[in-house]
Amino acid sequence: MTTTTTRVGIVGYGNIARGAEIALQAADDMELVAIFSRRSGITSASGTPVFTMDQIPSFQDKIDVMILCGGSANDLMEQGLEIGRYFHVIDSFDTHAKIEEHFTGMDRVAKAAGKVALISMGWDPGLFSLMRLLGEAALPHGKNYTFWGRGISQGHSNAIRRIAGVADAKQYTVPKEEYLERARNGEMSDFTAQESHLRECYVVLEDGADQARVENEIRHLKNYFEGYETEIHFISQEELDRDHAAMPHGGFVLRVGETQPQEAQVIEYNLRLASNPNFTSSVIVAYTRALMRMAAEGKNGCITIFDVPPAYLLAKSPEEIRHLL
Amino acid sequence: MTTTTTRVGIVGYGNIARGAEIALQAADDMELVAIFSRRSGITSASGTPVFTMDQIPSFQDKIDVMILCGGSANDLMEQGLEIGRYFHVIDSFDTHAKIEEHFTGMDRVAKAAGKVALISMGWDPGLFSLMRLLGEAALPHGKNYTFWGRGISQGHSNAIRRIAGVADAKQYTVPKEEYLERARNGEMSDFTAQESHLRECYVVLEDGADQARVENEIRHLKNYFEGYETEIHFISQEELDRDHAAMPHGGFVLRVGETQPQEAQVIEYNLRLASNPNFTSSVIVAYTRALMRMAAEGKNGCITIFDVPPAYLLAKSPEEIRHLL
Repeated sequence: MTTTTTRVGIVGYGNIARGAEIALQAADDMELVAIFSRRSGITSASGTPVFTMDQIPSFQDKIDVMILCGGSANDLMEQGLEIGRYFHVIDSFDTHAKIEEHFTGMDRVAKAAGKVALISMGWDPGLFSLMRLLGEAALPHGKNYTFWGRGISQGHSNAIRRIAGVADAKQYTVPKEEYLERARNGEMSDFTAQESHLRECYVVLEDGADQARVENEIRHLKNYFEGYETEIHFISQEELDRDHAAMPHGGFVLRVGETQPQEAQVIEYNLRLASNPNFTSSVIVAYTRALMRMAAEGKNGCITIFDVPPAYLLAKSPEEIRHLL
Repeated sequence: MTTTTTRVGIVGYGNIARGAEIALQAADDMELVAIFSRRSGITSASGTPVFTMDQIPSFQDKIDVMILCGGSANDLMEQGLEIGRYFHVIDSFDTHAKIEEHFTGMDRVAKAAGKVALISMGWDPGLFSLMRLLGEAALPHGKNYTFWGRGISQGHSNAIRRIAGVADAKQYTVPKEEYLERARNGEMSDFTAQESHLRECYVVLEDGADQARVENEIRHLKNYFEGYETEIHFISQEELDRDHAAMPHGGFVLRVGETQPQEAQVIEYNLRLASNPNFTSSVIVAYTRALMRMAAEGKNGCITIFDVPPAYLLAKSPEEIRHLL
């Protein structure tokens, strides 16, 4: 199968960007042309030239698609609206409550520009979203469960770090085996994320900080720890750096349903990831390929994982892909 | 979201057909119009009228899509070429070695008729195929493993039944936990289906049959048992009927890969099914919905699960579907 090479740019240069850089180097049908960062003077791991953000519009004839690797909280909505005017874009926007707003904005920009914007790609949202949809399709009378972990939640780690007296922290989200087993056994009940997850915190105190107060503040942090079973371990910075530097993650999507009364059918999808950002990026790169195929067919506007025909994910001919049947 | 009702016919009236009948009754956007069988005088569980096969062409204005529920060995290739001239069709063709031949034939017929034919749908081929593709896309440097069971293999049960002296038999395919664990632990090796599965047989002998000979013949059946660890249990017809009448099945698709050297990423998809045919049919009915959406967009020819945008599987609006992100 002959494919033209897709010219790719990366916007931002954090963990997801570095993962995309690795994944693109392994993809024969894609070429990483440039990386764009807010900071100047950066060199990239692959030797790809790094430019500043304001140079992005000048790459209109040199880049087909931009992988937007900024954060959901502050970067992606704004950057997408700007960069989506010039390029196809793909992002990993994961603020669930704002996805519809982001979709609407990106759809308008992409349609006006005749471009495709693929938002909220990765594993959750992303592959896990697809599993929730497939589960509902296969077993309409049923229930979806999502469990996250064991893995580091950046949001929860940051929330702990913002507490006065905390020098550093890492927080692991851990699914409770008991609830996983209940879902696996075909139980259809309404347990909450609070009930079914444990929060495991590793906290480094500043000199002289009040351990009891910090512990109390963590336990009562609304939207983060309140309502959760929370384990707090105070350790040294050396221990944190030595034992908690990796970025493992994972999780589970289960669909539990019945095709007839008392006829339990259980679908489980799970991930065990040594590197959360590198897996996320690898998925994003595969969907970048699919986005280009859809763009070549004349598609424009904002899309999600739900719109993508799976065959477009591989750089193989239809015949080769059918061998996977 | 307003949807027109899809008028569906079922061809054949075995286990998959009965499962489709159940799934269609639960689908508000679909109406089961008629069932077609080789045999006459049949009544259906749902009260849907049953016609003979020769009446199929007269339903051209009354049915949009036919779910072909015959067997892969003798029915589907032939029936598809005939029925695909008049209707959109979907089947669960699962003879892996002949899929490409079936695809070619169905593509020709469907294109000539301006119809869509979706072949090889179910869970393997079907959802498992999709997982193999998604795994390869997400982790290009890696390896797919498929395990089947624990569940009854109709083909292996039939093979035992054909041996002289055997009155009845059921064969369970069982994945070996040891190999599953090796895959789950991120091992990328080339173990075979023979190594990684156990074959568990429950056999009823005819009066006076030579047990030792039957056992020996089973163990040496080429393409079925030779090379496999095989357990053979001789039991009475009463025990077989009492303990082995259900049709549970399941299996596992694992993708084990590395995003960087020594960075193991593991994806697992597994099914635990109380009823294999009813789950298969439920998946087929969801993909029947998707087929109709693709047909409405002007698609024609033969397609597989790899061509279907997942959003088309649910009778929901794009906005509702994005809530699953």
